[in-house]
Amino acid sequence: MSVLAVGTVAFDDIETPFGKRDKELGGSATYITLAARFMSSDVKLVAVVGDDFPDEYIDVLRSRGIDLEGLEVERDGQTFAWGGKYHYDLNNRDTLFTDLNVLSSFDPVLPESYQASRIVCLGNLDPSVQESVMKQVDDPAMVLCDTMNYWIEHTPDSLKDLLGKIDCLVINDSEARELSGVPNLVLAARRIRSMGPEILIIKKGEHGALMFAGETVFSVPAFPLENIQDPTGAGDAFMGGFAGHLSGCRDINLDALKRALVYGSVVASYSVEQFGPEGLYDLTRSEIEGRIDAFRDLTTIPMSSIESIDSSS
Amino acid sequence: MSVLAVGTVAFDDIETPFGKRDKELGGSATYITLAARFMSSDVKLVAVVGDDFPDEYIDVLRSRGIDLEGLEVERDGQTFAWGGKYHYDLNNRDTLFTDLNVLSSFDPVLPESYQASRIVCLGNLDPSVQESVMKQVDDPAMVLCDTMNYWIEHTPDSLKDLLGKIDCLVINDSEARELSGVPNLVLAARRIRSMGPEILIIKKGEHGALMFAGETVFSVPAFPLENIQDPTGAGDAFMGGFAGHLSGCRDINLDALKRALVYGSVVASYSVEQFGPEGLYDLTRSEIEGRIDAFRDLTTIPMSSIESIDSSS
Repeated sequence: MSVLAVGTVAFDDIETPFGKRDKELGGSATYITLAARFMSSDVKLVAVVGDDFPDEYIDVLRSRGIDLEGLEVERDGQTFAWGGKYHYDLNNRDTLFTDLNVLSSFDPVLPESYQASRIVCLGNLDPSVQESVMKQVDDPAMVLCDTMNYWIEHTPDSLKDLLGKIDCLVINDSEARELSGVPNLVLAARRIRSMGPEILIIKKGEHGALMFAGETVFSVPAFPLENIQDPTGAGDAFMGGFAGHLSGCRDINLDALKRALVYGSVVASYSVEQFGPEGLYDLTRSEIEGRIDAFRDLTTIPMSSIESIDSSS
Repeated sequence: MSVLAVGTVAFDDIETPFGKRDKELGGSATYITLAARFMSSDVKLVAVVGDDFPDEYIDVLRSRGIDLEGLEVERDGQTFAWGGKYHYDLNNRDTLFTDLNVLSSFDPVLPESYQASRIVCLGNLDPSVQESVMKQVDDPAMVLCDTMNYWIEHTPDSLKDLLGKIDCLVINDSEARELSGVPNLVLAARRIRSMGPEILIIKKGEHGALMFAGETVFSVPAFPLENIQDPTGAGDAFMGGFAGHLSGCRDINLDALKRALVYGSVVASYSVEQFGPEGLYDLTRSEIEGRIDAFRDLTTIPMSSIESIDSSS
């Protein structure tokens, strides 16, 4: 099944304790599509850039099979740009600047070939733009949505309107606490799901993610890594891996959702090992499957054995 | 097999967003022993209190089968007291006071009946006291040790001396970063294990725990709870549950260690649902086993099924 991702394609200035890059290829749509393409041969991107956007970056996406018919290039426009600096433990970052540029007037019109997309990823954007894209898809099997504190604070009405229409919200723990107004994540999940989304995924950075679906809670850790260069885009790569796996499932049932969460976590783990999205450039499906196996070893609880000699109660 | 725990037995003044208690029964040895007793019928406590310590609290421990021959009552002494206030999300707390009192001259001498203990838990204390207790046990199958930032900063030499002699260190993530001097937990684990302990468990509060043993990394989440009243003692209850499970295993192999980590997490989850150690008072082994089953549902990754229709590489 096809995966459609709307979001940003951007210039990122990134500084981490391990290096510094200017005008790195970035943006939520970039990471989502580069991550989804390992599990789906039909990945479509919707975004806008200015005519300052280099062909070299277009080629990064096109050469990896991403459908770019929905990438609008605005004449005389400047590409959206973001700068951030990470603290020493990589768990916190300061945003240095955000230049919306062409994003401020982004009003996407989907190519006709996009309208039959099955899995829709609404990357972090103005909720009204996210809703507009969703409405242009005929009959999606699943709509996933990200958001951020800015929209929770500044456009609460259009965000709440959107939440009533999507299937799955994917946000981080601080956003879940802010959106719900409660610090306990289990209670926060209940309150957020009462706003609409049947499925809620709470991302916790280096601590993994929690998924709430039906009566089920499912937990995945982040894959333990010795070498983390740059966490930028990890949450988007996670969403892309999650969506990619679902696109290959006949039924999107609970088991499929659980496995998708593991794929999301594994693809994100490869993304953070290099700067920008470079960790996703030459990655292979078999490398992903190898880390999926390692992930099982990391989390599988052995059954009790006959070795138990004492079971006092 | 028997479990011996040395640590504090204390008066705790606790304030959380959900209530306030003065002179609550507390201390690391209290939580460790109350948690271990569900999996072991032979749990021995080593600690000191003043003669201001009420019989009522002694009875809490004795009536639950804890061997108190090693609990010293110092005449005219004041019991160790600690006060803490938790922030709204329960992840951070301020220590309001720490009155060492009888703890400042604590020099435990083990009763003869304690010397054959098999699993030894060195609760957070001066490392030289921890080492003195360890040396009085003849041939333990396993020595577990907790510590805290204070000892890392103030008694680094005696801590390092101790680390060379124990089997398993159990500390939280900020302590692991401070002890190793590196922010990445995988690298921190490698460095700490090179100081001695073959097994390292890093506790991450609401995010669960990581265990490093041999070439293996194993991850458990915290059990998701709607109702957390008081996180005090959770790390000690975790250690007690971990030690308790190991005490029932004929071989302390990797599978046993993994299961023990789950028992630790589950017993800790019951502890935080009530104030002080009260969540451990009337808990039953069958309630623990029920939550162990729920824990498997929370973490078990379903195998791939035939439903996959797309596996492009």
